[in-house]
Amino acid sequence: MKGDPRKPRGGRRRKDESSFNPSGLGPSGRSLRPYTVGVTASLTRTITEEDVQAFARLTGDTNPLHLDDAFARTTQLGRRVAHGFLAAGLISAVLGTQLPGPGAIYLEQRLRFLKPVFPGDTVTAQVEVTGYQPEKGIVTLNTDCFNQRREQVLGGEAVLLVA
Amino acid sequence: MKGDPRKPRGGRRRKDESSFNPSGLGPSGRSLRPYTVGVTASLTRTITEEDVQAFARLTGDTNPLHLDDAFARTTQLGRRVAHGFLAAGLISAVLGTQLPGPGAIYLEQRLRFLKPVFPGDTVTAQVEVTGYQPEKGIVTLNTDCFNQRREQVLGGEAVLLVA
Repeated sequence: MKGDPRKPRGGRRRKDESSFNPSGLGPSGRSLRPYTVGVTASLTRTITEEDVQAFARLTGDTNPLHLDDAFARTTQLGRRVAHGFLAAGLISAVLGTQLPGPGAIYLEQRLRFLKPVFPGDTVTAQVEVTGYQPEKGIVTLNTDCFNQRREQVLGGEAVLLVA
Repeated sequence: MKGDPRKPRGGRRRKDESSFNPSGLGPSGRSLRPYTVGVTASLTRTITEEDVQAFARLTGDTNPLHLDDAFARTTQLGRRVAHGFLAAGLISAVLGTQLPGPGAIYLEQRLRFLKPVFPGDTVTAQVEVTGYQPEKGIVTLNTDCFNQRREQVLGGEAVLLVA
């Protein structure tokens, strides 16, 4: 594993690049000790203008903070921001496709929106196992998102059923 | 206000119907006491097959639990389910368009996924003010989603900055 897994290489990643770092357990490590504390996975994606428009259509969240330049200029952020749930959706994607991966069932997600994400920002969602209760089949993870300037834009925790 | 606001009339609502119930304060009530505890708003929307496909493209969450019939039949749910964040997106939509409404900034969202949402389900997201700290400009709300059978599929709490 290169460098500190808490510091995504944001700016140098290509769109949709993903990584799975089994904490030195090797290729077979995941199946032997699948939910070792400290194991991480991540996904990087650029949130485009089109993504913001699509999310507004999909959910009905037409808040002018996301869609209306003139309105957004009057707010304290000064410009349009992406929906917070677009970055959060990347967390869902890492959890559902990598760690714990397909078949895991979402029980809980806590999200703290720390900084705005703007259309055009490249967001890395990173998840890290913080606990595993094999008798209950429950995995807990820290779930964080960073922008291309390595600023943390979202913090949180997830609980999933993997039994 | 008719009936119990905790029980959405799911099945009889048309797609995307929304309501805003200012707890008997009347049309001018909201501007005078905008964040009174107990005030509610809701949004109802049918989550279609196309929504699930669009959300998978948008976020990269291609978990076969959502997209692959054969895989989904092998899981304990027995069929494909919608992404949990699609229902959660309706909460974001109510918060961003109705209560607190445009301009409010998301600080926190907690989500508890209580029951699966299936493609074709009609989901009502309902938010209810539980606290308001005018000196900090912070509003807290309960955020719940119900399906067309009035079963609660999602529970949670939100914290927003409205100052």
